[in-house]
Amino acid sequence: MAANTSGVEDPIVKALQEYTTCDISDALVKLNHPNGGFLPGITMWSPQRQDGPTKIVGPAYTVQYAPKDDERPKWPSHYIDSVPAGAVVFVTSTRATSNALYGGLMSTRAKASGAVGSVIDGRFRDLQEQKDLNYPIFARDVGTTPPGSLLKVVAVNEPVRVSNDGQDIVINPGDYLVGDVNGVVVLPRGLAEQALPLMAKQVEADSKMAVEIQQGMTFTEASKKFRS
Amino acid sequence: MAANTSGVEDPIVKALQEYTTCDISDALVKLNHPNGGFLPGITMWSPQRQDGPTKIVGPAYTVQYAPKDDERPKWPSHYIDSVPAGAVVFVTSTRATSNALYGGLMSTRAKASGAVGSVIDGRFRDLQEQKDLNYPIFARDVGTTPPGSLLKVVAVNEPVRVSNDGQDIVINPGDYLVGDVNGVVVLPRGLAEQALPLMAKQVEADSKMAVEIQQGMTFTEASKKFRS
Amino acid sequence: MAANTSGVEDPIVKALQEYTTCDISDALVKLNHPNGGFLPGITMWSPQRQDGPTKIVGPAYTVQYAPKDDERPKWPSHYIDSVPAGAVVFVTSTRATSNALYGGLMSTRAKASGAVGSVIDGRFRDLQEQKDLNYPIFARDVGTTPPGSLLKVVAVNEPVRVSNDGQDIVINPGDYLVGDVNGVVVLPRGLAEQALPLMAKQVEADSKMAVEIQQGMTFTEASKKFRS
Repeated sequence: MAANTSGVEDPIVKALQEYTTCDISDALVKLNHPNGGFLPGITMWSPQRQDGPTKIVGPAYTVQYAPKDDERPKWPSHYIDSVPAGAVVFVTSTRATSNALYGGLMSTRAKASGAVGSVIDGRFRDLQEQKDLNYPIFARDVGTTPPGSLLKVVAVNEPVRVSNDGQDIVINPGDYLVGDVNGVVVLPRGLAEQALPLMAKQVEADSKMAVEIQQGMTFTEASKKFRS
Repeated sequence: MAANTSGVEDPIVKALQEYTTCDISDALVKLNHPNGGFLPGITMWSPQRQDGPTKIVGPAYTVQYAPKDDERPKWPSHYIDSVPAGAVVFVTSTRATSNALYGGLMSTRAKASGAVGSVIDGRFRDLQEQKDLNYPIFARDVGTTPPGSLLKVVAVNEPVRVSNDGQDIVINPGDYLVGDVNGVVVLPRGLAEQALPLMAKQVEADSKMAVEIQQGMTFTEASKKFRS
Repeated sequence: MAANTSGVEDPIVKALQEYTTCDISDALVKLNHPNGGFLPGITMWSPQRQDGPTKIVGPAYTVQYAPKDDERPKWPSHYIDSVPAGAVVFVTSTRATSNALYGGLMSTRAKASGAVGSVIDGRFRDLQEQKDLNYPIFARDVGTTPPGSLLKVVAVNEPVRVSNDGQDIVINPGDYLVGDVNGVVVLPRGLAEQALPLMAKQVEADSKMAVEIQQGMTFTEASKKFRS
């Protein structure tokens, strides 16, 4: 991973800490980015189940699993030993399986490397261990069985494609992955600088709208007053 | 919405406060109503995730979304500005989407109008904001992206059809929507007066059965003693 | 159910208390058992939703529902009145339905019989009552409607087949069912004695690996040191 995709000193990572995943999707919709960058079906499991103030922001460090008979060779080293500080580990598989793609020792290692969280496009396991580590996990579901008997890692830090309900999303290494109670959003690296000022503007307008609506203004009036 | 479908002064709404969604389904099954009025897949998200004493009861205020290219025109006003006090807002879409149909400002406005909760046949967003409002939300799932780029509202307070696993349910404006930790049930307005005495009878029998079973009676004996 | 399949005095049940469902799946994978015995889609609902230290271990007491027009006759007695102490009640249906297969009075009776928990391959209902009983429930989902109008019990304590995502699992009466925050695993009775020493070995190695990794060792080094 090139030095400039580390999340540790990145001012965009710092700026994104102020916004929810919904704020980011609002901005991406304005930039005509499909589905606001939302990754449907991937939700927070640790440190709490879709609850609490946990938010992760960082550049994606991508890991591609495939069935053992995939023509690509098994990756020569273990992906978890080269996670950059500040990264969000993103693990996916070309074939869906009820086996878990990720477990407790992976988080132990990722945390020691300074990763900010892991996003699993599939199942993970060792839920209690993840919580005990206080390490953020977003995933499709939980499970009990390790991946090794069916799958191998075939690519690390290369672009990966995530499919869901006919909606295809490509995640490039270094794209910003942001996760909170609402779910996970992919903010393409090339759109971040355009998106940030749009977030600031909408959050300010929406806060003012909320105050007025609570005091009795209609949504229509509030929208006219603050959004136009 | 006609005055007689407001939930505020409705004695049936008051009577239904005593019963769980399971009690209502038990009664509807006895009246041969399909699947006991259960709306599969729609669950409590706020103020707590499928937990706590939250129960909502009220007449449905229905909102129909459709894709932007639907032949019907966009509804001329914003649906959220005409929610009656005591109502349960019910939002559905003719096409499933990973975009959220509903968000935090909608609940801010609904709460100011005196609505008792919102039931979303799809995704909603702004989960933390919903909890902070202490406003009840039942939905299929959570998301991050607003609906406006793909969908428009085409009907308000007209009958809507909800599909799930080949099970079609029509919800008419004013039908009673009841939600609790078990999920959401639709009690057709025309069945409510017949259903209520059936609920009272079964709840009384089941309470007595539970006491006897805890003290060692078989289910078969207890059922014979209290249900026949 | 034969006396030797009761869980109360079974040393294997006692030994399994030390291990998570993940530990059991690890051992079953080593024995080439498909998917490590994992039952995808069945998760903890009571006493807490996928949280807390709850673990159930016991021999399966199986219950097979089928549609009312199934050629087999309705089972002549109520299955819940013959649950052995120490058993895990396992309820499945040949046809998926949005009706619940299981409810609060079933748990009241199962608990009085000394069952350790119930695993429902479908929906259950009366969630608050289940929690109030502090009785462990694992299930696919929650619901509101009883099964009786659509389904009948056709077999009790006979082998049952569970289907999920093209993955077929047979559960025999007396097979060990183990459930915790990660989900539910079926440990075939005939594999238990082989599997237990494999669990002990891996848990010891993994604990040592975790300590070293937290102190900076790579996963690759730790694996070489403790797993080979």
